[in-house]
Amino acid sequence: MRKVALVGTGLAKFTKDDVSIESLMLLAIKSLFENTQNVTQKDIDVVLTSTSDNSKYLSSIISELTGLTPKISHSVESLCNSGANSTVSAFAYVASGLADVALVIGAERFDSPGLVLEWDKSRGQYKHPIYWSSMFTKAHMRKYGTTKEDLAIVSAKNHKNATANPYAYFEKEYSIDEIMQSKNLTEDVRLLDCSLPCSGSAAILLVSEEIAKKITDCPIWITGIGQKTISAGFTKNTDLTTMKSTIDAATDAYKMSNIQPTDIDVAEIHDAFTICEIIELEDLRFAKKGKGSNYARNCYETQDRKINPRGGLIGSGHPLGATGIAQIVEIVQQLQEKAGKRQVQDAKVGLVQNMSAAATSSTVLILQS
Amino acid sequence: MRKVALVGTGLAKFTKDDVSIESLMLLAIKSLFENTQNVTQKDIDVVLTSTSDNSKYLSSIISELTGLTPKISHSVESLCNSGANSTVSAFAYVASGLADVALVIGAERFDSPGLVLEWDKSRGQYKHPIYWSSMFTKAHMRKYGTTKEDLAIVSAKNHKNATANPYAYFEKEYSIDEIMQSKNLTEDVRLLDCSLPCSGSAAILLVSEEIAKKITDCPIWITGIGQKTISAGFTKNTDLTTMKSTIDAATDAYKMSNIQPTDIDVAEIHDAFTICEIIELEDLRFAKKGKGSNYARNCYETQDRKINPRGGLIGSGHPLGATGIAQIVEIVQQLQEKAGKRQVQDAKVGLVQNMSAAATSSTVLILQS
Repeated sequence: MRKVALVGTGLAKFTKDDVSIESLMLLAIKSLFENTQNVTQKDIDVVLTSTSDNSKYLSSIISELTGLTPKISHSVESLCNSGANSTVSAFAYVASGLADVALVIGAERFDSPGLVLEWDKSRGQYKHPIYWSSMFTKAHMRKYGTTKEDLAIVSAKNHKNATANPYAYFEKEYSIDEIMQSKNLTEDVRLLDCSLPCSGSAAILLVSEEIAKKITDCPIWITGIGQKTISAGFTKNTDLTTMKSTIDAATDAYKMSNIQPTDIDVAEIHDAFTICEIIELEDLRFAKKGKGSNYARNCYETQDRKINPRGGLIGSGHPLGATGIAQIVEIVQQLQEKAGKRQVQDAKVGLVQNMSAAATSSTVLILQS
Repeated sequence: MRKVALVGTGLAKFTKDDVSIESLMLLAIKSLFENTQNVTQKDIDVVLTSTSDNSKYLSSIISELTGLTPKISHSVESLCNSGANSTVSAFAYVASGLADVALVIGAERFDSPGLVLEWDKSRGQYKHPIYWSSMFTKAHMRKYGTTKEDLAIVSAKNHKNATANPYAYFEKEYSIDEIMQSKNLTEDVRLLDCSLPCSGSAAILLVSEEIAKKITDCPIWITGIGQKTISAGFTKNTDLTTMKSTIDAATDAYKMSNIQPTDIDVAEIHDAFTICEIIELEDLRFAKKGKGSNYARNCYETQDRKINPRGGLIGSGHPLGATGIAQIVEIVQQLQEKAGKRQVQDAKVGLVQNMSAAATSSTVLILQS
């Protein structure tokens, strides 16, 4: 397996703007090429688009609009986990030797057809993700005594982190009180416990080791990959206090990179709802089971940006197909020491966890400078 | 790069039935597992779905419905070329070492949203593929003297071949006269010059060399891969008598497999319209430029099944996301000498050419026993 490096990143600001999926993608690509030296259009031999948008032939349209004529070009879809899936697909193209330079662009509009879980008939009327997050929350509260304040702390921390991210949808801090007083959507989940669907895009460039040396003196290597799909329907989840697909994906990613959870300096994890970050901190083995809240609280109180330094999904917004790519962009910039006011000091090893639909599938990536 | 073998195939009959995309995929998967020994659900570590359907999270839904819990799971979309793209993606996962056993399922409903080319605004009202096929036809007629009878022969040949394919939509032969008298859709293209959108599905299993030995004594190896996207919009085509993306893809595929066009024993090529097969015979270098018609006529007159033995798209029907996979299924069965009444004698080397949208992108695969 050939080594694969991340050598370029691009972002478009997350907004509620009514802008086409093509325009969103072009903004992130323009940003990437402005930030990346020594790459020309003719070097790109893979273009993958990541989205839940209904557009067809989007990777070819984007290629034409940007003057690219890749060998490999298609769209990848797996709901909120599309971004990490498209990245792993690009990794495989380069690692196998089929390609040398892969451009991956994720984008979504605020009104994406991927927002409502039409596919899980077993949910009855409860198609909106708010319902599974509510069930996770209640289960974790019952078993581990997690409180509404614990949830609010995750939101306060990530909103605070997002104030240093110029691409985030949210631009202001929220106090724990404000979060706890925000509108109740279910008994346990309030409006500010939720990430917000929005319009946005992100792009990354993956290259072979040989090409990486020509493009940059700070390549970031993808050293660990873990993925798992346990189901599509939520009703197969027998323990609502844990994310089995994330546990499996993390186990494989740690093993492949020969890294322990304690080696991770910075991580972007999939806080679609506040309870997700708490459970993921446990399932990624940053905290013992039931102690995810304590871990997040400590980060908040010590102003440690280690977890979700760009503000995660809660602070940045959640444009489905772009989210996984935007997470990777943040970790690359952190490991390249280019994260500005968000910089985590001495970050050498990073982790990305991206998941879909009540964690019925997950991807975990380990990145290293 | 690890060697990758095709070791299992499955098909569902192509029809105009109003059946769900999930049901279509399940039929092909059931067929594959009935035909394939020594593989269990737990062995599958990649599930890719190929379709232009608007369904979201389809690969996870299909995994759940079939009791699979893969590591890697997502959908791939690139209009009519989705099938070959998903196959190359699965190849990359196995070739890179990220996975060992990949299930790829392509399916489409007769009313797919991929049928109309909404994306190419430059076409104005002429969004239906019939218009580009008509322009290709007129250009080839002008430059090379191709006749309406030449077109009709391609259709007659492929419809005749399809009568030996139990999964084909069409089940009867058409005479050259019947084809030439069929309804004129444009000045140069008649109804029986066209492939028909339909409902259908196809599945294949790709595995590493080590696994292949355990599953079958007749693995079929993917030895050549070529892909090219030249644009998304038709207006960039400056020469309408040729398919530049197919030429480029074929050049790379022949080079990778170290095979010459004359080495090919059997081929499935993308006859979305009769003119396509004629141009492809030339651009794949089976015939000299301008002589594709002669080549097809010779196959028809000598009853040589070498080109499109299952009946191609014209005889079998064209369920977009399934087409590329169904082409591969046919070549695998031919090389395994399991093609029954359609068997091409002594077939050792096969070719698949799958393309999208006026050949703005193409994939060429070389398969060998």
